[in-house]
Amino acid sequence: MERLPGFRDFYPEPLPYPEAWSADLRTYIFSTWRSVAKRYGFREYDGPPLESLELFTTKSGEEIVGQLYNFIDKGERAVALRPEMTPTLARMVASTERQYKKPIKWFAIPQLFRYERQQKGRLREHFQFNADIFGESGTSADGELVALLIDSLRAFGLTEEDFVIRLSSRNAWRDFFAKHSSENSNEYAFYQAVDKIERDSAEESEKKFAAVGFKREQVVEFINAATPTEELAAVIADLTARGLGNYVRIDYNVIRGLAYYTGVVFEAFDRKGEFRAIAGGGRYDNLVGLISGEKVKLAGLGFGMGDVVLAELLKKRELIPRFQSGIEVYFAITDETVRATSLSFVQQLRQGGISTDYSFTPAKYDKQLKRAIELGAKALAEVVGSQIKVKNLATREEQLMSSPALIEWLKKT
Amino acid sequence: MERLPGFRDFYPEPLPYPEAWSADLRTYIFSTWRSVAKRYGFREYDGPPLESLELFTTKSGEEIVGQLYNFIDKGERAVALRPEMTPTLARMVASTERQYKKPIKWFAIPQLFRYERQQKGRLREHFQFNADIFGESGTSADGELVALLIDSLRAFGLTEEDFVIRLSSRNAWRDFFAKHSSENSNEYAFYQAVDKIERDSAEESEKKFAAVGFKREQVVEFINAATPTEELAAVIADLTARGLGNYVRIDYNVIRGLAYYTGVVFEAFDRKGEFRAIAGGGRYDNLVGLISGEKVKLAGLGFGMGDVVLAELLKKRELIPRFQSGIEVYFAITDETVRATSLSFVQQLRQGGISTDYSFTPAKYDKQLKRAIELGAKALAEVVGSQIKVKNLATREEQLMSSPALIEWLKKT
Repeated sequence: MERLPGFRDFYPEPLPYPEAWSADLRTYIFSTWRSVAKRYGFREYDGPPLESLELFTTKSGEEIVGQLYNFIDKGERAVALRPEMTPTLARMVASTERQYKKPIKWFAIPQLFRYERQQKGRLREHFQFNADIFGESGTSADGELVALLIDSLRAFGLTEEDFVIRLSSRNAWRDFFAKHSSENSNEYAFYQAVDKIERDSAEESEKKFAAVGFKREQVVEFINAATPTEELAAVIADLTARGLGNYVRIDYNVIRGLAYYTGVVFEAFDRKGEFRAIAGGGRYDNLVGLISGEKVKLAGLGFGMGDVVLAELLKKRELIPRFQSGIEVYFAITDETVRATSLSFVQQLRQGGISTDYSFTPAKYDKQLKRAIELGAKALAEVVGSQIKVKNLATREEQLMSSPALIEWLKKT
Repeated sequence: MERLPGFRDFYPEPLPYPEAWSADLRTYIFSTWRSVAKRYGFREYDGPPLESLELFTTKSGEEIVGQLYNFIDKGERAVALRPEMTPTLARMVASTERQYKKPIKWFAIPQLFRYERQQKGRLREHFQFNADIFGESGTSADGELVALLIDSLRAFGLTEEDFVIRLSSRNAWRDFFAKHSSENSNEYAFYQAVDKIERDSAEESEKKFAAVGFKREQVVEFINAATPTEELAAVIADLTARGLGNYVRIDYNVIRGLAYYTGVVFEAFDRKGEFRAIAGGGRYDNLVGLISGEKVKLAGLGFGMGDVVLAELLKKRELIPRFQSGIEVYFAITDETVRATSLSFVQQLRQGGISTDYSFTPAKYDKQLKRAIELGAKALAEVVGSQIKVKNLATREEQLMSSPALIEWLKKT
């Protein structure tokens, strides 16, 4: 029996086949995200992977249904696997925000699902680091959020030579649109055309702009001028004060496809342009109102960073650490007469916080030595009388020790 | 818009309403499980939350479909949200076991889904700590697995006065059945009747046993005799060698409902009997064969421990720690002229691994002091010239410091 196409199994290393996804890499990515978010004072939350379909159509319109894993459950409810986290977050915040001091700074690492027609290597699920701030409409919050994004990438060893955050502004684009058009019904289609301007052919792009009463040329001119708005200048000043100025540039090619952005928007790209966007986000001051039926109004902003593009980038830049079993001591049991004493030592070591493994069946010492080395253990242990004979696997030196002494030695190395 | 019934949102503490589920508690439970599993040399894996429906019906029969979130996806595949992890694990292991040295010791913390008719407080999803061993048919592996279960509970502060592992044996029950019946087709119904013997009324129970040619009395007698099989004696000896003998007892009331168990089976219960089983598992030496269409034969055993009963038990025993924001330094910004310098210090602190927060908008010092205390910060910081004035929030002492000095002080406290 096979897993579903577009879904991943995560295996412990060493990987069983070259293209397998590594559970160790996933753990490394998640714990790096968590530790940076924590340094920034963001708190973890989560919601259900299954939600009412309506939650997603309210935010993104009926057209999203074609891309969802949606169905009718046994209680006749129209439900869907979450394709993104923001609607769930907006729902959670809308219903409880009075109980929380502002600003609210939260993060999550949800698994998200999209039914897309299968393309080579295109997945139907991924994990996404989501960080959001609520209750602050000033640009300091935008600065904090972009700084978190930058440090979340730097924490993997990526530098300003590897990636850049392209900052843009929905406000700048809204002003540009309003200046040149009075057909409000064209606004969203215009944004969509801008969103695709780098990927569409010039001809295709020209057609799209013509359809909403614009010339591609005038749009390109506006992008090239890259005149900073006041809010963008403030965000850049904020990041420069943190020493992160070199990680951002204004780039109006970025606009973000989704309808609900209202202010500063941004995307993170690798400088070599080999990958899709690594992360993207922006301000969405009206979304909590929309999701709550205008019962709650609350400024908001956030970003999402997926695990798939990030993992590809880290692989390409050779920034993935070597993952070991984590075993520190391998306890050799050469015959059944020493099993009970060995188990009591194994228990003591584990109790002392030492990751310890041993053989379920008696085996030759050399075979167990080999296993210990394969596992990357620091020491091979063996019962000798009431003590432990410890072989340091780095130096091959042997020494008799008590279990507390062994624990102490391992905590120091 | 509401979340679906039976699903949970997880909020950061302080909780917005008393019955809310705590994301901090969830993190605490997950990281405790992970750290014990790691000490025992178990490696983390994961699989997709959505699988082919067939994977689950192969293992548990068509009758499981009534309890599943199952549907037809847009590619006409019959799929289901996973109700348990073992079928996914057996699939993963069957397809890759040749690449792994035996024994395979793996764990996961999947979210699982069951569509059950809504009962008060009954959830439709939960998280489950799953630990499994493959490739070892001897009882040492059973000992290791039960020891892991015991230590996974002890790591939360639970003691032998709080819980006990009731050990039983499918082999013992199979022998008992074979001795008194030659109707093999009754075997599974007989196990089901045993599984419910504690919950059913005596009358109901008698009927069930009569239907498969047994007297309840003879079954109760067998349970009360509690004669250890050789394998159970070996597992108890193994646990006793580890000093964990007081955590287990033989109890043939336990049999485990699922069809696929083959050897030692067990369940963890609170000693006061206030909760449903905390965890359960056992040996299933034929399951990998079943899932792989008999292409791969591999001994296996494992257990699952859910987060819901565990959280209830920890609450009742007052073993849940107090969760704080994790913020170590709150950086006060009293006017905009010091924001840039303050941000550069905030960046330095975070770079040094210190969890730091600050105000997005200028505010009075006293208001920020109050916020720092609410967040449980160790220090309130403020720019004074090129230094940081640090107020130790435990002693209220103030001191001028450089940021490296502040980082060093915090790492020590």
